[in-house]
Amino acid sequence: VQYLSFLSQTKRDPLAAFMFALALMPAPAHLSMGQGELPINQDFSISLSANPDPRTSAAAARLLTHLSKRTGMPFLPNPQQPKLVIECAAAGQPVQALNEDESYKLTITSQQAILSAPNPLGVIRGLATFEQLVAPSSSGFAVPALTIDDAPRFPWRGLHIDVSRHWIPVDVVKRNLEAMAAVKLNVFHWHLSDNQGFRIESKRYPKLQSMGSDNLFYTQAEVTDVIAFARDRGIRVVPEFDVPGHSTAWLVGYPELAAAKGPFEIGRTWGIFDPVMDPTADYTYDFLDNFIGEMAALFPDAYFHIGGDEVNGREWDESPRIMEFKRAHGMLAKTGAPSKKDLQLSDEKLQAYFNQRILEIVKKHGKKMMGWDEILAPDLPKDIVIQSWRGQQSLADAVQQGFQGILSSGYYLDHMDSSAVHYAVDPLIDPKTKQPLNLTPEQSARILGGEVCMWSEYVTAENMDSRIWPRTAAVAERFWSPQTTNDAKDMYHRLDQLSEQLDWYGVTQRSSYTPMLERLTGSQPVEQLRTLADVVTPVGLGGRARARKYTQQTPLNRLVDAARPESVTARKFSDKIDAADWVAVRALLILWRDNVPPLQNALLQEIAPVSAALKNTATLGLEALDFIETKKHPPQSWTKLAGEVLADAKKPKAEVNLAIVDPVRKLVEAAAK
Amino acid sequence: VQYLSFLSQTKRDPLAAFMFALALMPAPAHLSMGQGELPINQDFSISLSANPDPRTSAAAARLLTHLSKRTGMPFLPNPQQPKLVIECAAAGQPVQALNEDESYKLTITSQQAILSAPNPLGVIRGLATFEQLVAPSSSGFAVPALTIDDAPRFPWRGLHIDVSRHWIPVDVVKRNLEAMAAVKLNVFHWHLSDNQGFRIESKRYPKLQSMGSDNLFYTQAEVTDVIAFARDRGIRVVPEFDVPGHSTAWLVGYPELAAAKGPFEIGRTWGIFDPVMDPTADYTYDFLDNFIGEMAALFPDAYFHIGGDEVNGREWDESPRIMEFKRAHGMLAKTGAPSKKDLQLSDEKLQAYFNQRILEIVKKHGKKMMGWDEILAPDLPKDIVIQSWRGQQSLADAVQQGFQGILSSGYYLDHMDSSAVHYAVDPLIDPKTKQPLNLTPEQSARILGGEVCMWSEYVTAENMDSRIWPRTAAVAERFWSPQTTNDAKDMYHRLDQLSEQLDWYGVTQRSSYTPMLERLTGSQPVEQLRTLADVVTPVGLGGRARARKYTQQTPLNRLVDAARPESVTARKFSDKIDAADWVAVRALLILWRDNVPPLQNALLQEIAPVSAALKNTATLGLEALDFIETKKHPPQSWTKLAGEVLADAKKPKAEVNLAIVDPVRKLVEAAAK
Repeated sequence: VQYLSFLSQTKRDPLAAFMFALALMPAPAHLSMGQGELPINQDFSISLSANPDPRTSAAAARLLTHLSKRTGMPFLPNPQQPKLVIECAAAGQPVQALNEDESYKLTITSQQAILSAPNPLGVIRGLATFEQLVAPSSSGFAVPALTIDDAPRFPWRGLHIDVSRHWIPVDVVKRNLEAMAAVKLNVFHWHLSDNQGFRIESKRYPKLQSMGSDNLFYTQAEVTDVIAFARDRGIRVVPEFDVPGHSTAWLVGYPELAAAKGPFEIGRTWGIFDPVMDPTADYTYDFLDNFIGEMAALFPDAYFHIGGDEVNGREWDESPRIMEFKRAHGMLAKTGAPSKKDLQLSDEKLQAYFNQRILEIVKKHGKKMMGWDEILAPDLPKDIVIQSWRGQQSLADAVQQGFQGILSSGYYLDHMDSSAVHYAVDPLIDPKTKQPLNLTPEQSARILGGEVCMWSEYVTAENMDSRIWPRTAAVAERFWSPQTTNDAKDMYHRLDQLSEQLDWYGVTQRSSYTPMLERLTGSQPVEQLRTLADVVTPVGLGGRARARKYTQQTPLNRLVDAARPESVTARKFSDKIDAADWVAVRALLILWRDNVPPLQNALLQEIAPVSAALKNTATLGLEALDFIETKKHPPQSWTKLAGEVLADAKKPKAEVNLAIVDPVRKLVEAAAK
Repeated sequence: VQYLSFLSQTKRDPLAAFMFALALMPAPAHLSMGQGELPINQDFSISLSANPDPRTSAAAARLLTHLSKRTGMPFLPNPQQPKLVIECAAAGQPVQALNEDESYKLTITSQQAILSAPNPLGVIRGLATFEQLVAPSSSGFAVPALTIDDAPRFPWRGLHIDVSRHWIPVDVVKRNLEAMAAVKLNVFHWHLSDNQGFRIESKRYPKLQSMGSDNLFYTQAEVTDVIAFARDRGIRVVPEFDVPGHSTAWLVGYPELAAAKGPFEIGRTWGIFDPVMDPTADYTYDFLDNFIGEMAALFPDAYFHIGGDEVNGREWDESPRIMEFKRAHGMLAKTGAPSKKDLQLSDEKLQAYFNQRILEIVKKHGKKMMGWDEILAPDLPKDIVIQSWRGQQSLADAVQQGFQGILSSGYYLDHMDSSAVHYAVDPLIDPKTKQPLNLTPEQSARILGGEVCMWSEYVTAENMDSRIWPRTAAVAERFWSPQTTNDAKDMYHRLDQLSEQLDWYGVTQRSSYTPMLERLTGSQPVEQLRTLADVVTPVGLGGRARARKYTQQTPLNRLVDAARPESVTARKFSDKIDAADWVAVRALLILWRDNVPPLQNALLQEIAPVSAALKNTATLGLEALDFIETKKHPPQSWTKLAGEVLADAKKPKAEVNLAIVDPVRKLVEAAAK
């Protein structure tokens, strides 16, 4: 039975309907409902038919802790008989590998649940499913009787977190790993260095962190702890050290690595910087050999990400020494003034040369290399992985050449797109034509999956969770569930509940919201500001960059930073318009029209135009509703004015968008019909 | 200028009015407003004119961390010039002492703030005040120009937490210490053992924790860490080991301490238990000598609390050996069958004998003894401290005899009284006559202050913060501020804001509420349950004990456990009635009348009668309002029925009280006039 048939079942069976309301996310590949439910009471306990891998018992203990939180029940020390039996066939690999089996089968009757899996990873995934099934029932808490037979669609399902541009402490990383495990993601891509900060301790080159991090970095002990924490949850940790560009923070302590003469300072702004490593110097490769060796020993994963993106080449072109190197190595004509195009090509060749040398180092230390689109060159070995920020076609090119790849284009959280937008992006479907990529089965199989990217120009530890969650859960479903699981309405129905469940893992995507708003109002009541904040969303990266000059030290404490990337209120309002629930629609419009948030202080003054736009849009919506309900046709002058009001309201103000504009436009259009 | 004159100032000066809105709590002894404000921007920094005590610089660093959270601003690494200068005259005592000077003076101009204090404790108190003054302003964040000259009314201002009946982990203890420091409390009374759990590691007698705690106890390293954490915040840590009663958890591992023959099991229920130590055996005193010696070395504070409460004497009376001892020592007539009264007196004498022996041990290990009312006996030395759960008159008796004492009667949080009720309790005022206790100044001075008590029969780590805060802040003000600071309305105005501020210290008194309600609704929307929960309060200890048989393992996951001890909504509703704001009153009554919370599952079924009572009460309120607004006199039949509706609604249901009953009664009475 496919998941979609489960949906249709729910319309018949009250228990199934109840359970449909659960946030099973990602949706399992196959599910069939049984009869009745298995109570989860204080006698609940777990038995392991065997314990071939310590991760299995650790996952079982974690389930008990989570269930105790979720239900508020302390479990009794001497339970009667196991309610959940875990059968794990064999131990997993010493280092979690790509393509390791993650499948599981979960059978729940009113008597007992049995979770069987070939491998501890399947146990971990199955327990995540089990946990999502627990809900209050007529007898206390329970899980429904059912059978789930499940396995992922893609083997690489990642979340990339940039900890360089803003510092993200260990506890924030850990709670996000916990949430990742809840939605069955399996790769944490740790973007550890960039222009704005070198975030990990090197014992070999301590000036990397001591001069490049404002003293905000992970010790190696902390990194080891995070890796173990991730492994326990079935998550691989892939480190990224972006070279030869995006490397200013390295150069502060080690200017001898640089193409240009120092000194260098930690980058405080955003964008593509000039500072770049010198790919012509032996020192650079000796340094990277030592450094990568140190890191390769610390990070057990088979893959090592070298970044490789966004090298502008300026400092290479300005260096006589490097220009000479390029000429000597045939990257540039020996004589004559090169054109801009020639220079660009020569820099690409120089970077390819650099990548080849880095590749040797990475291989020497036992790792497979990974990098962004820019590293792609025909003479690289086929086991490298290309991470594409450019899109599915770039990815298709790579796999057609025999490389492996993962998709990140379409999964950039800092663009502030909706969950539905990200959910619709499929690694195997061309976003323009909506058709499957033109690939052979072998080529398709080389598209390993994808990674959600959390770049941190405009996030801090305080609000990062709210940017990652719950949107990332929608993408996690894209990576795990069958391609045919793609109904956005159904996804949202489950996402809203999953978002509540994530609270129990300590992620702050919901809990940070009100305090951030209260900070703005100080001693004033927060309710009216929240009414406004509920229907605005932050502009994306570009909008923020255009709005003002941000630096790493600009406070991110304004409405735009508190607002969530997606307005649940506006979505539900839109649904009520579609359902012609005019009573509810009118009540919301009146609430918004009459809303008067406090604007007295410096941080709130900027939102006056947002508040005015909300009032105007709501007023317009009420007028449209009057026309609809009285079945009168609006005069043309009104329709024209309505267009102007909407156009104005649609423009970002104070770096936020008003999320009710499009729904109100639907009302205006309905009125004009 | 007294604080009260500050209130009248606020009516004139807009800035002062703005700042009045701040939650200065406890209110300072003397405050006068200045002109303007001192901006708190990213350049903010602190300088210490001297650093005689490491607690001063630690407190300054903590202020920066807190301000950064509160404002959302990262502070710049190289600030221009210090905005806050701290002048600390001398180091404090190596172990924080009772009566150490906690005074401070804070002078803020638009240019700079100066905090001066004779002692690091004053610095810590002054920084807590400074932190509360920070608010958004027309220029960003700022503190108002003012002068505060402040010192506490009582030197002993404590919070007692019972970690035995339910286990409270270290992180929960720490966040409560942080909140205590925010309201200038200075004693953490740690109730470490009771019938239901022995919660600290003894290296000398490891079976205490290994057999008496379900493996839920603090290691000595954790205790040392908590003590250091508390010391940094100007908080003394007084341990309590309750003997000879309330000691079942000791006897599980060491039955040879007991009056009766074992074996013993950890207590799982509540109340006064029979198991008691044997006060006639040398073994008992040898054991306690060793154990108290071990603990006296671990806890540096001068005081050591031996409990001493609620010994029922049954096992003493049933033991021929102990009866013989009592006869031999003149506590009971040598011959004849003793009356019940004789037996009780003999047991009191036996406990006094026990206390004398314990006193010698406590003294031997360099500590002063402390205990509950029951330990009071004329022949004890005058430096002991009596903690009174019996009340001010009991306390007056003690200080008249020359003992010192602190008040806890009236400050029991598990009675679920309002902040205003606790706020009105004064250690020096007889609650019956409302008159000052009849004491000489010397006797009054022996009343050192008081302690708020958090007994944990009906709290867990999940909801304990919501029982302690914000109510404890009202009592903290009683202990710190002048006796004349006693306007409940003004207190609530500040308390509501303080409660928001406490969020930033990680206490969960606000944030745990919605997740606990969402747990109950599962996948159903939570809004209507929250509407109901907002206007109910848990019944107190007695009501819960009568309602059902609770044990330590009963889940505390129901509405009564999520509901807050005090309904802010009902209080504001009542205020609106007093202000005859009929529009707002009607809107709330309609909301409640029409509220239909989900009741489908086992945990929610019990609230059906609560929901019905809310509906009935709100309906009645609307009828009353109609009479009031139409100026019609209600028929007698209506008034009679109204009385019945209110009487029914007033009865607890599902262990909660409906907090709008009394306000609606005001409406009914107004209608009947």
